[in-house]
Amino acid sequence: MLQAAVKWVDGLQFVGNSGTGHAIVVDGEPVVGGKNTGMRPTELLLVGLGGCAGMDIISILQKKKQQVASLEINVKGQKAAEHPKKITEMEIEFVITGKDLSEEAIKKAVELSMEKYCSVKATLEGVAKISFSYQIL
Amino acid sequence: MLQAAVKWVDGLQFVGNSGTGHAIVVDGEPVVGGKNTGMRPTELLLVGLGGCAGMDIISILQKKKQQVASLEINVKGQKAAEHPKKITEMEIEFVITGKDLSEEAIKKAVELSMEKYCSVKATLEGVAKISFSYQIL
Repeated sequence: MLQAAVKWVDGLQFVGNSGTGHAIVVDGEPVVGGKNTGMRPTELLLVGLGGCAGMDIISILQKKKQQVASLEINVKGQKAAEHPKKITEMEIEFVITGKDLSEEAIKKAVELSMEKYCSVKATLEGVAKISFSYQIL
Repeated sequence: MLQAAVKWVDGLQFVGNSGTGHAIVVDGEPVVGGKNTGMRPTELLLVGLGGCAGMDIISILQKKKQQVASLEINVKGQKAAEHPKKITEMEIEFVITGKDLSEEAIKKAVELSMEKYCSVKATLEGVAKISFSYQIL
């Protein structure tokens, strides 16, 4: 069971406490009365997607003895114009560097995350259309 | 356009940087090789849901001149047993205190958020079945 308790602080600022004992600040944008002291709630979905996929890919590549030096996941999201402004499209790009990397291993790791393991992707793709790509630098 | 860049640090630890300029740490649980230095990616979805709904409700209640003293949003999520372990059910409970609160105003604010405004709920409910309730203390 996943759990979180989100408490109002002031204005549109809230602190979210998770069941695993971590806290983060979320806040609204100034045009709607927020003070931008923390991420927007919708941005958390993007970080969740990138983090989930990143953990899968690092785990898989380490099992395949790939020497990854860096992994960055760039996530973009497009919201609908009308309320409730759901996220309709997401793009996720994996940028990997390392030594003697096998493109085949990387392609397979990305596909396993996106198609089999990433629980955030599987949850979000009910509404959002999610596309992905990778680059080896 | 929403944006985030999530960078691998070490182990299963990543730092997510959002387009609005905020950073958070995500990490895995120790049984899969993480060090629990930050939230799980799936927990971000719960905090996002609670934060999004909280911002709506505070904004609506302030417009209705309600004197809210505190608002806490408790969010629970149930994951499927099989990979990709998508979130299948979420429960969101709003606990409000204040002075001379109108139950009608609170009920309406909660319903407006859940049924009309909350973009995170609208995005997640493609896969997860989301239920909600409120308490005035």
